[in-house]
Amino acid sequence: MAPEATAPAPRAPFGQRLAGARSAKGSLCIGIDPHPALLSAWGLQDTPAGLERFALAVLDAVGPEAVALKPQVALFERHGARGLAVLETLLACAAEADVLTIADAKRGDIGSTMQAYAEAWLGEGSPLAADAVTLNPYLGFESLRPALDLATATGRGVFVLALTSNPEGRSVQHAGGAESVARSIARAATGENSDAGPGHVGLVIGATVGDAADRLELDLPALNGPILAPGVGTQGAGRSELTATFGDALPLVLPTSSRAILAAGPDVVRLRAAARRTRDELA
Amino acid sequence: MAPEATAPAPRAPFGQRLAGARSAKGSLCIGIDPHPALLSAWGLQDTPAGLERFALAVLDAVGPEAVALKPQVALFERHGARGLAVLETLLACAAEADVLTIADAKRGDIGSTMQAYAEAWLGEGSPLAADAVTLNPYLGFESLRPALDLATATGRGVFVLALTSNPEGRSVQHAGGAESVARSIARAATGENSDAGPGHVGLVIGATVGDAADRLELDLPALNGPILAPGVGTQGAGRSELTATFGDALPLVLPTSSRAILAAGPDVVRLRAAARRTRDELA
Repeated sequence: MAPEATAPAPRAPFGQRLAGARSAKGSLCIGIDPHPALLSAWGLQDTPAGLERFALAVLDAVGPEAVALKPQVALFERHGARGLAVLETLLACAAEADVLTIADAKRGDIGSTMQAYAEAWLGEGSPLAADAVTLNPYLGFESLRPALDLATATGRGVFVLALTSNPEGRSVQHAGGAESVARSIARAATGENSDAGPGHVGLVIGATVGDAADRLELDLPALNGPILAPGVGTQGAGRSELTATFGDALPLVLPTSSRAILAAGPDVVRLRAAARRTRDELA
Repeated sequence: MAPEATAPAPRAPFGQRLAGARSAKGSLCIGIDPHPALLSAWGLQDTPAGLERFALAVLDAVGPEAVALKPQVALFERHGARGLAVLETLLACAAEADVLTIADAKRGDIGSTMQAYAEAWLGEGSPLAADAVTLNPYLGFESLRPALDLATATGRGVFVLALTSNPEGRSVQHAGGAESVARSIARAATGENSDAGPGHVGLVIGATVGDAADRLELDLPALNGPILAPGVGTQGAGRSELTATFGDALPLVLPTSSRAILAAGPDVVRLRAAARRTRDELA
């Protein structure tokens, strides 16, 4: 990619920007998950054009209510390059509207390949760059180094998968007993965040993992970075589940809801009301 | 995506098609990794146009020599939607030329999100569909079920990350002692392949992991599916390393080389000669 003609003004670190958004708008993160069934319920076609109308409508309706929007990359990628072009449009419009974005891409690789993913999602001037990206540490936390470094350099953030709520996730994430995989990931993420100001290296931990974070001794309050917690809202976790899962780390948590809110659309007023209601219930 | 007007002729299962290609062309898999430095060495710009010239030149030069071509998705994604459009063109041209493709995407997620990744990379009519895709099992092998099922239905294949050669991968892949993560992944993959004919559920195991597969008791000969083994060629593994790493499972292995061969370009004759030499050295 050609470097930009003039270097952009350095943005503030992601941790600071996230803290600012949280003060202004609360801590609810809203997923943009254009599932085929949802598009159909909104009267939209399962095409890149339908995807674009959906994504931009969600941005307009709930962007002002969310600490960040989290587009689910798989659902754009499902439409190939044209779907990714819609994601680029969404990310540009969100930046224009001063709404933070977390690309839920769950990327992970090694060396120069990981560097390429980092440049795609966190690089200056990349059309897919979001404010933060989710990462997958199967190749080792340290394999993510190119993304950690680039996020620091560009004032962006990362969220590393640690503990997920699907039962089959345990076979990997709980492996290792007292020194579990999830625990080593959480500790490594903690080591990336300094004590000065809120960190930009976060974790993904399902809102419905119950006491797993406790049992695996994750020491989440020490993270000093954000915790993305999918699975709140209808049929998911409420305030009591969040408290049970995160305890003293609750101030770090970004409860994340998507379909429970998106199902209230396409009417903008109902959609926005659903976002506010969810946010207030969890506050 | 709209269903196709007429259902395509069902293709033969991936395991069979791969076996056919192997009989005809040997077992070397060649990666298409358009790194910026490589584009520059070829006199190409680091742009989608440069990417396209590179990718199609590699297809033409070494497609006839390779059991499969493995485009590295990160290096296309680095150019955003326009880079992914180049990957779509490459995949279409490879299919036209009857060259098998393995999209090295390392995707992984759960539920309907995993279903979306499966549709993107393995679905009938998807512009990004390859003959096979690499997957990441951090969310548990079973989380990959939508891809396993769709691959079966469309005659395509998957390669699940098991053991990688980067040292930091051990923190996750070796976790669990005698019942290591990598061992459980290998066993689960084995369970997917029937005894009748070569299976379509493969593994990714670095060619330079040394005796790790042995020490972790992966029982690779039982897999009855293909093993993608990156890391052969210049500065990487040769025949003796492959034998040491894979032992009796060697007949399942697809040794995979990219930069060691691609560096011989852009001259077509030299590129093809490098591919043949690597293949013959490993045969």
